[in-house]
Amino acid sequence: MEGKEEDVKLGANKFSERQPIGTSAQTDKDYKEPPPAPLFEPGELTSWSFYRAGIAEFIATFLFLYITILTVMGVSKAPTKCSTVGVQGIAWAFGGMIFALVYCTAGISGGHINPAVTFGLFLARKLSLTRAVFYIIMQTLGAICGAGVVKGFEKSSTFERLGGGANVVAHGYTKGDGLGAEIVGTFILVYTVFSATDAKRNARDSHVPILAPLPIGFAVFLVHLATIPITGTGINPARSLGAAIIYNKDHAWDDHWIFWVGPFIGAALAAVYHQIVIRAIPFKSRA
Amino acid sequence: MEGKEEDVKLGANKFSERQPIGTSAQTDKDYKEPPPAPLFEPGELTSWSFYRAGIAEFIATFLFLYITILTVMGVSKAPTKCSTVGVQGIAWAFGGMIFALVYCTAGISGGHINPAVTFGLFLARKLSLTRAVFYIIMQTLGAICGAGVVKGFEKSSTFERLGGGANVVAHGYTKGDGLGAEIVGTFILVYTVFSATDAKRNARDSHVPILAPLPIGFAVFLVHLATIPITGTGINPARSLGAAIIYNKDHAWDDHWIFWVGPFIGAALAAVYHQIVIRAIPFKSRA
Amino acid sequence: MEGKEEDVKLGANKFSERQPIGTSAQTDKDYKEPPPAPLFEPGELTSWSFYRAGIAEFIATFLFLYITILTVMGVSKAPTKCSTVGVQGIAWAFGGMIFALVYCTAGISGGHINPAVTFGLFLARKLSLTRAVFYIIMQTLGAICGAGVVKGFEKSSTFERLGGGANVVAHGYTKGDGLGAEIVGTFILVYTVFSATDAKRNARDSHVPILAPLPIGFAVFLVHLATIPITGTGINPARSLGAAIIYNKDHAWDDHWIFWVGPFIGAALAAVYHQIVIRAIPFKSRA
Amino acid sequence: MEGKEEDVKLGANKFSERQPIGTSAQTDKDYKEPPPAPLFEPGELTSWSFYRAGIAEFIATFLFLYITILTVMGVSKAPTKCSTVGVQGIAWAFGGMIFALVYCTAGISGGHINPAVTFGLFLARKLSLTRAVFYIIMQTLGAICGAGVVKGFEKSSTFERLGGGANVVAHGYTKGDGLGAEIVGTFILVYTVFSATDAKRNARDSHVPILAPLPIGFAVFLVHLATIPITGTGINPARSLGAAIIYNKDHAWDDHWIFWVGPFIGAALAAVYHQIVIRAIPFKSRA
Repeated sequence: MEGKEEDVKLGANKFSERQPIGTSAQTDKDYKEPPPAPLFEPGELTSWSFYRAGIAEFIATFLFLYITILTVMGVSKAPTKCSTVGVQGIAWAFGGMIFALVYCTAGISGGHINPAVTFGLFLARKLSLTRAVFYIIMQTLGAICGAGVVKGFEKSSTFERLGGGANVVAHGYTKGDGLGAEIVGTFILVYTVFSATDAKRNARDSHVPILAPLPIGFAVFLVHLATIPITGTGINPARSLGAAIIYNKDHAWDDHWIFWVGPFIGAALAAVYHQIVIRAIPFKSRA
Repeated sequence: MEGKEEDVKLGANKFSERQPIGTSAQTDKDYKEPPPAPLFEPGELTSWSFYRAGIAEFIATFLFLYITILTVMGVSKAPTKCSTVGVQGIAWAFGGMIFALVYCTAGISGGHINPAVTFGLFLARKLSLTRAVFYIIMQTLGAICGAGVVKGFEKSSTFERLGGGANVVAHGYTKGDGLGAEIVGTFILVYTVFSATDAKRNARDSHVPILAPLPIGFAVFLVHLATIPITGTGINPARSLGAAIIYNKDHAWDDHWIFWVGPFIGAALAAVYHQIVIRAIPFKSRA
Repeated sequence: MEGKEEDVKLGANKFSERQPIGTSAQTDKDYKEPPPAPLFEPGELTSWSFYRAGIAEFIATFLFLYITILTVMGVSKAPTKCSTVGVQGIAWAFGGMIFALVYCTAGISGGHINPAVTFGLFLARKLSLTRAVFYIIMQTLGAICGAGVVKGFEKSSTFERLGGGANVVAHGYTKGDGLGAEIVGTFILVYTVFSATDAKRNARDSHVPILAPLPIGFAVFLVHLATIPITGTGINPARSLGAAIIYNKDHAWDDHWIFWVGPFIGAALAAVYHQIVIRAIPFKSRA
Repeated sequence: MEGKEEDVKLGANKFSERQPIGTSAQTDKDYKEPPPAPLFEPGELTSWSFYRAGIAEFIATFLFLYITILTVMGVSKAPTKCSTVGVQGIAWAFGGMIFALVYCTAGISGGHINPAVTFGLFLARKLSLTRAVFYIIMQTLGAICGAGVVKGFEKSSTFERLGGGANVVAHGYTKGDGLGAEIVGTFILVYTVFSATDAKRNARDSHVPILAPLPIGFAVFLVHLATIPITGTGINPARSLGAAIIYNKDHAWDDHWIFWVGPFIGAALAAVYHQIVIRAIPFKSRA
């Protein structure tokens, strides 16, 4: 199905390779796809770097929820939105924090800060099941603590009156709309993560780990610009769960499944799109 | 007409070369202009990478329209603009998506996501006619689907009442103003694309494919800041056509030619400016 | 406690190293932690570069306060916030100035522009006590001058009526809330500084000194998005002191300790987190 | 006066050099300060690259005025600022255009797009007097054309009623305030240009020509955030003159000297600060 890896330069294409569809993959690639991670890796559990990575995910998701939910509160409580950072400021808070935190933690844990990202990378076999489960637990705990600190700052009644930054499907949209918005939104995020962390790209440029956080953060910012009016934008089950637990109202729990099912479907589609359509990895390994 | 390629550093100039106008081009350049792409390249059609590039253009334009038209809808439907991301947020959505999507697809298809960019690069003979036509078709299909999904989310009547994100010349401006705004706006975008993908620049710095998406995205953002009040800003015929087909009202169709003619003229002018005035490529090949 | 330095790539992890917890540190690291700076370094005082660094910190903090307090004044004095750059614009002014100034001064003084950053880096023994004290004095003098120039531009009565950009705990929050907000906010900033200037990261990529200012500036921007409604956001004792001295009202002085104690605690926590939890430096030096 | 070039890493300092003040400069620098440009360079006038650079400055300043004045018009004419990109959007237009245009023209003309930048770099002897005068003329012509096209789009009466984007000192500020704001604002811009184009920095990192446009564009953005309420922000005599000529009202001409004298003083101060205080170039050449 896939002939040869062709690297088309930005704004151009190259004609140096003309391999008919169906030809077996070439072997002179200048990069190597890393082998799939095992499902269970016992050695990990005795390595300090494994726990350190979990701590980094916990702290990062804590800071993520702290800054973003506090920004949401500041906008929600003001009588006039013009005297706040506005909805656009909320979008910047979410996207900007992902940019800064991925920059800080990429070298420690991979910088997921989001169970959907962890799930997508797990499907692509880029980390073990053990590690994926550990990350998701630490992310969720971090998110709960982050939202909890914000509730501590605001008065409890104010926090609840303002919605607590919890994700719900807005009036005027169906649950199907909300689910769709979460699926496409998470697809954009996880697709950007795959593009940025591509083995092929890494092979060519060692700066990717430093430059990649910017488009990843922007992807989060952009999805928030578009879907805050629909669901408040989840695309991160830890963020949604953390806010929901601290807010703890029925109407948030009613919609809560959307913010796990949607992001996980979106992440899976992104993994399929990048690994199979773009990189054709299953076809290559059989060649 | 052109003497020697001189590379002036940022904020400075060099005096090391003093070749009189009209001298034949030197041959010791440290980069090589790639040969012009053939008009028709039969081998392409049997290459998987050709179809993969088309899929990438389809998906990217789909996501571009989805996020941007959804953002436009969110701003349009709110009773007070202060409680939305605002017109500036719309400009960020357009520019930011181009940044993220060019970053993701540059290595697959060249990251055009815009028939005007494809047309400009085709004029500079950077891709074959076959590929240009294929890209433009895929971009247009992606745009129609993206706008269609947004219409699915919003109620059909709401979508139409709010203008559906279609480009029209605003009240108070003539069709000539709209055409001029599209020409200059597309010139800025395509000129930035040419600057970022210059063979000379690429030769010096291998990071360009990673860094170039940022100024390209900013160019789109900036043109939107200036011309949203005039035409809603097209500078991308696929985006204009996709929105127009889904919106499908007479007043959008009446102005629609502007959003093809304007961008194509702007792209052609940018190709002439960069290839002939700045790089003097026709004169060099005859030397 | 710490086995082996493992560099996890963005969005992935590696399994190449499985060192049990408690194993002594390996010696084949590809980077070298610089030795701790001495507390007192007499040679510094006779070096021009020492004084030049102080001048650079003075000028940078002067420009920082000038631009940011002027932006705050412009927003505060307008009858309607919609005709100003808004609170989001204030956040951009603070974050953007740190980005630009760290970019300009990183090669001269290290680009601190903030006593909390100097304090955090001093705790990590990255500069001498002499230099730390000198920097903090120069930063404070620069901040006073910067706020003073803004007062000169605005009428004195206007300046005071509008709050003079001084940090106070907002109505509806306790002093404890304000202190907490300053601690976490400064933690985010100093943690980003540590991540960006990590010896390990520097060893791998020589571009860090050029790329690092962006996430550092973003960290400042993000903290402002979240905590302007609580304290006006200090996270920089020089900025808070400079504004307080020029404003000079009792209610600003009453809260002023928060803007020294909070940032210094936050910076100390960030130093502990990065140096001990993430890098485990004390354990390594004993191995 | 100056001992040894010391390169302090971001967020740290080095103690490897302890040269007492007054020692003669060392000769083992790893970079070379380029020789000062001659005042008059006859060879330039017969070189195509000289005229090409002038054309690039003309087109860039044309596009700069076109986008920015059009953005100003869009904000000014709206009945409520909330339905526009706002004053923050205007600041983004100015800063963003400088980012994109410096990125595009840095390799052709040095990317000045501003007589104050040309003047500052001329004082530092980075370009000849011939070239400086030629650039300033081309920038001014480009600015006039850019503002003229905007006037063509808007109705002439509307354009004049809205102020035409011309710089004037706002009500409530003295001419001295305006002059001061222009001096400090231009100092920030030209200081950033000097920092970004430093020979020392260039020697260490070949990516500077690609990365430098971002902080330069941000500097322009930040000065606009702060001083739009005072003067509308000039810091670019070509931009001020172009808008003033097309607007052509007495009250704009009355203040017009401020937008030449201020930027030129600011640029001169930045040249003195960077070349003498930071780099100590006069002292080194005599060592």
